[in-house]
Amino acid sequence: MKKLTLLFLLSLVWLPNIYAQIKRIEPINWWIGMHNPNLQLIVYGKAIANSDVKINYPGVRLVKVNKVENPNYLFLDLVIEPSTKPGKFQITLENAGKELAPYSYELKSRDQHQVKAQGVNSQDFIYLLMPDRFANGNAKNDVVEGMRERGVNRDSMYYRHGGDLQGVINKLDYLHDLGVTALWMTPVLTNDMEQASYHGYANTENYQIDPRFGRNEDYRKLGAELHKRKMKLIHDVVPNHVGLNHWTILDKPMPDWVHQWKGYTNTTYKDQTIYDPYASTSDRKKMTDGWFVPSMPDMNESNPYVQNYIIQSHIWWIEYAGVDGFRIDTYPYNDLDFMAKWGKALINEYPSFTYYGETWVHGVANQAYFTGGKTINQQLDTRLQGVTDFQLQYAISDALNNKMDWTGGVNKLYTTLATDFVYQNPLRNVVFLDNHDMSRFFSVVGEDIDKYKSAMAWLLTTRGIPQIYYGAEILMKNFSNPDGKVRDDFAGGWDTDEQNKFTAQGRSDVENDMFNFMKRLGNYRKNNAVLQTGRMMQFVPEGGIYVYFRYDDQKTVMVIMNTEDKSIKLETERFQEILKGRQKALDIISGKQYTDIREFSLKPKTTVVLELQ
Amino acid sequence: MKKLTLLFLLSLVWLPNIYAQIKRIEPINWWIGMHNPNLQLIVYGKAIANSDVKINYPGVRLVKVNKVENPNYLFLDLVIEPSTKPGKFQITLENAGKELAPYSYELKSRDQHQVKAQGVNSQDFIYLLMPDRFANGNAKNDVVEGMRERGVNRDSMYYRHGGDLQGVINKLDYLHDLGVTALWMTPVLTNDMEQASYHGYANTENYQIDPRFGRNEDYRKLGAELHKRKMKLIHDVVPNHVGLNHWTILDKPMPDWVHQWKGYTNTTYKDQTIYDPYASTSDRKKMTDGWFVPSMPDMNESNPYVQNYIIQSHIWWIEYAGVDGFRIDTYPYNDLDFMAKWGKALINEYPSFTYYGETWVHGVANQAYFTGGKTINQQLDTRLQGVTDFQLQYAISDALNNKMDWTGGVNKLYTTLATDFVYQNPLRNVVFLDNHDMSRFFSVVGEDIDKYKSAMAWLLTTRGIPQIYYGAEILMKNFSNPDGKVRDDFAGGWDTDEQNKFTAQGRSDVENDMFNFMKRLGNYRKNNAVLQTGRMMQFVPEGGIYVYFRYDDQKTVMVIMNTEDKSIKLETERFQEILKGRQKALDIISGKQYTDIREFSLKPKTTVVLELQ
Repeated sequence: MKKLTLLFLLSLVWLPNIYAQIKRIEPINWWIGMHNPNLQLIVYGKAIANSDVKINYPGVRLVKVNKVENPNYLFLDLVIEPSTKPGKFQITLENAGKELAPYSYELKSRDQHQVKAQGVNSQDFIYLLMPDRFANGNAKNDVVEGMRERGVNRDSMYYRHGGDLQGVINKLDYLHDLGVTALWMTPVLTNDMEQASYHGYANTENYQIDPRFGRNEDYRKLGAELHKRKMKLIHDVVPNHVGLNHWTILDKPMPDWVHQWKGYTNTTYKDQTIYDPYASTSDRKKMTDGWFVPSMPDMNESNPYVQNYIIQSHIWWIEYAGVDGFRIDTYPYNDLDFMAKWGKALINEYPSFTYYGETWVHGVANQAYFTGGKTINQQLDTRLQGVTDFQLQYAISDALNNKMDWTGGVNKLYTTLATDFVYQNPLRNVVFLDNHDMSRFFSVVGEDIDKYKSAMAWLLTTRGIPQIYYGAEILMKNFSNPDGKVRDDFAGGWDTDEQNKFTAQGRSDVENDMFNFMKRLGNYRKNNAVLQTGRMMQFVPEGGIYVYFRYDDQKTVMVIMNTEDKSIKLETERFQEILKGRQKALDIISGKQYTDIREFSLKPKTTVVLELQ
Repeated sequence: MKKLTLLFLLSLVWLPNIYAQIKRIEPINWWIGMHNPNLQLIVYGKAIANSDVKINYPGVRLVKVNKVENPNYLFLDLVIEPSTKPGKFQITLENAGKELAPYSYELKSRDQHQVKAQGVNSQDFIYLLMPDRFANGNAKNDVVEGMRERGVNRDSMYYRHGGDLQGVINKLDYLHDLGVTALWMTPVLTNDMEQASYHGYANTENYQIDPRFGRNEDYRKLGAELHKRKMKLIHDVVPNHVGLNHWTILDKPMPDWVHQWKGYTNTTYKDQTIYDPYASTSDRKKMTDGWFVPSMPDMNESNPYVQNYIIQSHIWWIEYAGVDGFRIDTYPYNDLDFMAKWGKALINEYPSFTYYGETWVHGVANQAYFTGGKTINQQLDTRLQGVTDFQLQYAISDALNNKMDWTGGVNKLYTTLATDFVYQNPLRNVVFLDNHDMSRFFSVVGEDIDKYKSAMAWLLTTRGIPQIYYGAEILMKNFSNPDGKVRDDFAGGWDTDEQNKFTAQGRSDVENDMFNFMKRLGNYRKNNAVLQTGRMMQFVPEGGIYVYFRYDDQKTVMVIMNTEDKSIKLETERFQEILKGRQKALDIISGKQYTDIREFSLKPKTTVVLELQ
């Protein structure tokens, strides 16, 4: 009896005809003429669940109204017929015959002139930056009233610094000049978190650029400005988790919207449990369903409502802003069945679209497991096209920091590449020296310019899609531990900065030397297909010397890496199979012309990139 | 004119009707009723090539007489019809109508009562020994007149010590007592080399046991004695190379019988060149066709005559001596196309036969490449069933010698096993701690008995086919560098030995303790399918503790490995998924009965093997 009374009282309080009002609908709009005619709207409003839903628009069919545990939500399954015209229409809730709270929803026409979904591939050269730390183009959005974290403190790595999209737009010519062809920013969606909101991996909105970075329109403008320069936009997606203040977390549609545990349970970060034939179910569950950190709830990606919510919001950004490719955060932590479905949905809509996953694991087989094509005995084809190639990052670090032995030093680099047979297409992997979570490579090589240039020469000539981290070109340094020091501001990105390293005048001689090295290599790569799609041939390292070639019908590029601390004289007779008698070569960095490379001298710890002639 | 004269003179000297005589034919005999009716005889005799060959035996058809570059050879293609009766027949050479030098060849009936070709699998426990260093059962064959290396010098690791097959036969009860079920000896074929002939990998005959080890009959007897004890015989085959004094090398049938180089060319030992998509042809050729060492010519395994010679001689030993499985030496150095063909021929004849290859490479993907089933994107299915699992050897060494960190210490062991998804059947891999080429594991763990027992407990309870190296059970030690020190004699194998460690009386207390540890574990494994074929479940290591289970419908065995230098108390609640509430367990080494394992105490650096009850 007591229980019934309580329920009765509650029903009075939540009476839909009193409170029903749509507060929001997502996706915030959609388009006509999408390949997939289905659309699932998440409708949010206090106690709306018992309402009838009415939609009256030619071509739009309301197929199903889904009620879930939380009466503040409805999930509407729509079909958008191909004949549908663009326009706005009312979504109306009705209770006891009384219409309430109409909500205007828009179906837009697709922008046929907008460049989008081009895909990012080995023709590209990616520049990764953190938008809060790169350049401040609009001081007015540094502090946004009403957001949980306010204020700017450039003296601390953990607070916001004020960088934004307009700042990035302002520097696109700089990036273009460097030879960069694709921009990957850490996530730009609203992160209305109390602390460390700058990093972006705890989004609280799915359809809104963080106001401190700019408006949605600014992101769309960034896409257009990139495309104007024949550059591409990579959007960093985080399907695995959101921020604890995400609006759907503050009031969850249903308990299993996220992975729930009796007590807080962190992921073990043990990717092994995913593929281990001997893994326990409990270990596997802890890995995939445990939370990444306490502030980021782990989405239940096996929940069909969650699946639709994620897939649609990702498609939305491609269509809205002209995104060309995705970088997927914490790939192994996702539900791989879902990721396969997700990938299929994207490619179904945009056949040329590409995406690569962050696979911070150890071991070639371990990394390859997550890639698509069932090349390595996987049960499931994840359809993941490429990965952030951590194995090669470990390898280049070993090559430049350790003396060659049977398995280590430059032999590690050689053997890691030799194991490329495990991938469906290794050219789709993103190669890099560092990123926002790792020690900057200039520090990793002990600030040795020669070694650093060797690394960069390798990065831009080996197979795959090269990626650098902002400031790499001007010798930015620091170690990742303590965290944050690798997320320093790019000097000159703020009007008040004393130095402006975006300009030659603002850079020191040694910085300009490095910048020019990168620029020359980046632009050579941009203008020469041989370094993008050319075949590769590598030779067994001998005496610390690693030699490889990229070649196509037009050109052959020879790379000689001397990892020894001493000068070498290399007899090149051993490479006749590909040299084919050629003895002339152009050093593409220095511009030096060699007339006879049969015996080639190389300084300690240096790498030379030669175009054979 | 001059040239013609020379040819004429030569033809006089080599006139077949003067010198033609068959010196030998191999295979030295064959059998009726083989699945494959084809047989290729290699016939050797001075200048026999121009002779006509006559064979007159019901059911035996001479299909083709193959002449090759060297006139001292003929290769005869025979078909043995199913109707053929066992017996001897004459192979006759005829020149200018004159019969010469008849040679009696025998087709035997197959011994239907002989056990053979059983296959070696995860039910087995392999004991590897070097027959020259284990036990001398027949002092009369220590020195054999007419062989290139004579004399016995037990003070030197590089000379012969006198061990032989009779010595091994004498010790089979000892091995049986230990729980061993399969014997792998380093090769026993005649190695008539000037130096270091004891090691056996430079055979000079294909159909003869080295007389210093015994006669062919002794090897056959060894097979029978093993089978009498329900043990198996593993034969170590070396298809890749032979000794420089092999009779077919001293007078080569044709130039391309072996891989020829302008100047001596060693293999680079770089397995990477086999699977590297970017390998140069020259690097690949050097790896596969280069010689392993100057004294061991590299067989041209793409030569069909060589292929037949190898395959038939291997089948011969299965049929003759009752061999149950092969260990294949230097697997990656072979022509893999040939190895696939070789494996097919063996299985065609003996469907239950098994073989595993030595893959001394670095990296799980690198090792898996050589295994069969195209599980890891190989172009070719090598049909190789299992490998000597070097990756797990590196891993157990890391686990016991280094502190656990994110990837190292016992995490290396955990992650290597987790990567088993790359194999068609990981149970077919041979797991081991050491072998005749490696430092003895007791030395590798710094002669720490606890660590050593941990390693052995792991070896006999993890997945795969465990293999120990002779003397491991009595704490034999030493490092592989300088080579040979790990090939010491088993004390007591020689009548003159002061100590006899084949007996409890001859062993010290600590040696007996180790022997009994091995014996208990070996026999438990032999008598309990759960450790042979049971499924495995492993848990993410925490705090240096690694816990895994083997289980089947009958039993569950729990293994707890403490790699820390301190005692631990382990809460076992985390393993409820497999414990299923069970709290009682039997320590199968100590026999101790535990009534409550919910909190389990373990000494530093120890591993316990518990049967749940």
